[in-house]
Amino acid sequence: MKAQNHRIRVGIVGYGNLGRGVEMAISQNQDMELVGIFTRRDPSTLASQAAAYNLQEVESFQDKIDVMVLCGGSAKDLPEQVPYIAKYFHTVDSFDTHAKIPEYLEVVDQTASASGKVSVISTGWDPGLFSLLRLLGQSVLPEGGDTHTFWGKGLSQGHSDALRRLEGVKGAVQYTIPKEEVLQEVRSGKPVTLSAADKHERVCYVVADEGVDLEDLQHRIKTMPHYFADYKTTVHFISEEELRKEHNNMPHGGTVIHTGESKVGDKQRVEFTLALDS
Amino acid sequence: MKAQNHRIRVGIVGYGNLGRGVEMAISQNQDMELVGIFTRRDPSTLASQAAAYNLQEVESFQDKIDVMVLCGGSAKDLPEQVPYIAKYFHTVDSFDTHAKIPEYLEVVDQTASASGKVSVISTGWDPGLFSLLRLLGQSVLPEGGDTHTFWGKGLSQGHSDALRRLEGVKGAVQYTIPKEEVLQEVRSGKPVTLSAADKHERVCYVVADEGVDLEDLQHRIKTMPHYFADYKTTVHFISEEELRKEHNNMPHGGTVIHTGESKVGDKQRVEFTLALDS
Repeated sequence: MKAQNHRIRVGIVGYGNLGRGVEMAISQNQDMELVGIFTRRDPSTLASQAAAYNLQEVESFQDKIDVMVLCGGSAKDLPEQVPYIAKYFHTVDSFDTHAKIPEYLEVVDQTASASGKVSVISTGWDPGLFSLLRLLGQSVLPEGGDTHTFWGKGLSQGHSDALRRLEGVKGAVQYTIPKEEVLQEVRSGKPVTLSAADKHERVCYVVADEGVDLEDLQHRIKTMPHYFADYKTTVHFISEEELRKEHNNMPHGGTVIHTGESKVGDKQRVEFTLALDS
Repeated sequence: MKAQNHRIRVGIVGYGNLGRGVEMAISQNQDMELVGIFTRRDPSTLASQAAAYNLQEVESFQDKIDVMVLCGGSAKDLPEQVPYIAKYFHTVDSFDTHAKIPEYLEVVDQTASASGKVSVISTGWDPGLFSLLRLLGQSVLPEGGDTHTFWGKGLSQGHSDALRRLEGVKGAVQYTIPKEEVLQEVRSGKPVTLSAADKHERVCYVVADEGVDLEDLQHRIKTMPHYFADYKTTVHFISEEELRKEHNNMPHGGTVIHTGESKVGDKQRVEFTLALDS
């Protein structure tokens, strides 16, 4: 599988969690090499073995890099950086603001078409793999069908943060878990309309400050609007040590289920599951 | 979704079970219309509402049909028909002799490239959807991983026929079912080498002739070489009526599981399941 002479020359723009993940992924793919990391910060401060450059130098790498992987945020970085970078390089990003993808696609498509480059947007698992699979399901079974996406089992950063902001909470994680009985209902092909709260339950592991009234804290969690009030929520109080030992990974995943009928009465189901340890 | 003026004009070549299924599928897709069915038999004998023509007339339809769906057998029909039809039309087929696909691809590719047509070969669920998903899993998780394909729950025509050929058997169906404990083992990401017999069990529903020694018949089934001897096999004797009522559908499906590691220690899993009633 090694083809040293034809390795894809990759650059990374932005070096946060995502940039570090991409750096690790490139090192696992023998058909790629990392040429450099581009950052708006002082390149000498980057904690990486790879060559680091200021983002302003990027244009001078046109002959040295094939593909740029954009690792900035969807809110501000990508809409500004990708249309610029796509003038000079093929690009890959993981723009994930679902509602704004069509608008973003149009902007990026204009630049990339003009420069003759390929820009792959919104990669990842959702949007990304799950989008592919939803499209696949709807393409092969267009009639009498329905597509449902379930999230989890996964750690929700936003909900974990919400727990941590509560008075009396020392540490916490929250897992979003699809309800098994609803998964079964959807698999059966019965047409159903489901909200996120119908499909998922929330399980919290909380380290409480000493002397806190646990019953009161549990009540404050379960009634927190937007985050937990609408959901079936379970709260487990655990020790700091257990939190550190048992909940230090960030599992993620989900399931796309598409059901349809090939002719009246014959149910067909396509199901795709992703389970990521971290 | 209706765009009458841009409907894909489809022709069907061959009118067996598959051809009839394609005819039904076209009627469910509003962006397609069936222009005609082409057969080597006398077209007036076809039990279809659609226009039927002799296969020899196919060349005169170059301006009337966009895509030909080839519904003949993989052994003889497709290798002969597709390279000819692809001179004049885009083609879709479901060539399913796995071992011969590369060779078949090359032949079809030569014709289609020369004529400027698109030929999509080996569509269906395996090869087809499952091939796509195996490739997808291996592409996104190339390292430390493994891909396993499980068949079923599904009715096996070949094994059902093998049962029916036994003396003392009036009627029978055989279901191939993935072993739940092996599915779990593969999901866990543990590297395993598995034969078809390791992964599947065989469940037979048999109507015996009157007066037959059931214990002897069961023994003859379970020890039948190639078909059942290597497998965990269960035999249920049932009535003719139950066979007709409960086993008249042909369920099919299967599961592709790809596991890998994103960095040492972090297990990732991509799983794809297809469950077809008939």
